[in-house]
Amino acid sequence: MAKRGMLIVLSGPSGVGKGTVRKALFEEPDVDFEYSTSMTTRKPRDGEKNGVDYYFVSKEQFEENIQNGEMLEYAKYVDNYYGTPLKYVNETLESGKDVFLEIEVNGAMQVRANVPDAVFVFLTPPDLMELKHRLVGRGTDKMDVINKRVKKAVGEISMMRNYDYAVLNDKVPLAVDRIKSIIKSERLKVARVMPDYESMLGDK
Amino acid sequence: MAKRGMLIVLSGPSGVGKGTVRKALFEEPDVDFEYSTSMTTRKPRDGEKNGVDYYFVSKEQFEENIQNGEMLEYAKYVDNYYGTPLKYVNETLESGKDVFLEIEVNGAMQVRANVPDAVFVFLTPPDLMELKHRLVGRGTDKMDVINKRVKKAVGEISMMRNYDYAVLNDKVPLAVDRIKSIIKSERLKVARVMPDYESMLGDK
Repeated sequence: MAKRGMLIVLSGPSGVGKGTVRKALFEEPDVDFEYSTSMTTRKPRDGEKNGVDYYFVSKEQFEENIQNGEMLEYAKYVDNYYGTPLKYVNETLESGKDVFLEIEVNGAMQVRANVPDAVFVFLTPPDLMELKHRLVGRGTDKMDVINKRVKKAVGEISMMRNYDYAVLNDKVPLAVDRIKSIIKSERLKVARVMPDYESMLGDK
Repeated sequence: MAKRGMLIVLSGPSGVGKGTVRKALFEEPDVDFEYSTSMTTRKPRDGEKNGVDYYFVSKEQFEENIQNGEMLEYAKYVDNYYGTPLKYVNETLESGKDVFLEIEVNGAMQVRANVPDAVFVFLTPPDLMELKHRLVGRGTDKMDVINKRVKKAVGEISMMRNYDYAVLNDKVPLAVDRIKSIIKSERLKVARVMPDYESMLGDK
């Protein structure tokens, strides 16, 4: 039996560029993990393909999936459901392959509760890092803008606490490179490879 | 004040190639961490330079350092002391730079006790991974050799439990690349970067 694969979860605040980073990541030549396509009840936009961008299903179908415990995580935004079907994720992990999810922060917290050994990556907006520089040396006439930014940043920071890694999305190729390092490195964790070494000797 | 640097410890069983991997790592063009040269009481070998390969000191000097609590870790092998002076490590970490140690397993366990947030990398010999293949399909006339290998491997596995990462030294450039990914990834840990984000907002 293959060792169960690793689940990697990319999330972050709305508008941080999760989808862009995920697409760029899967265009890399050396990707050796699987993308789990999300399911939604919203209508496909121009150019979106069923099974590629999303699995497009009816509201009834989605709610039936929820009822039957067939969703790893889900959430409702603006009257539409978005979520991750459990079956594909489980089958892929069981086959020994790693699975990559790109989901909203609410969904990520549901996965955290169900799959404690998953790897949680939080994508942070560049303005969070630039905030200090922007705040320093500004006049009081901009205090309302500053306050909004600080408030948003503080909210984002508090979400970050529930993740394992913080990846700055200053430039997409840099963010992609950081995520690749995390995946490579997580595969070397003693807690993950120990069973390989043990079974190797146990099977003798 | 700069954020305190990260301490990275490379260790592993005797003869696994720690020194070779460490030297290759520090020949990389993008190294952005400091090597902490070890101190020893053994005589320099041909070509070895004081302050580069080791700090070569007298037995009296080394024992005085131990007495004064000036060693981060140390051990005695075949009548000679080997260890890491605390001062350089502390000063470099305080300046915000990451420090890399390449030390014996006994020393690594001393560092583990003193610096719990250090990163511990265990270098594993390739024969540990090849062991199963070697064991399978061999005749009984080789059982003594097999038993020795198994015994050694079992001992090595039990040491590995105290580390964060296991890096296979099948090929030096691959081992170097794995260690670089680990360092890159560890720097992105939320637990490490959280203070940056917090102080950024606290300083406003």
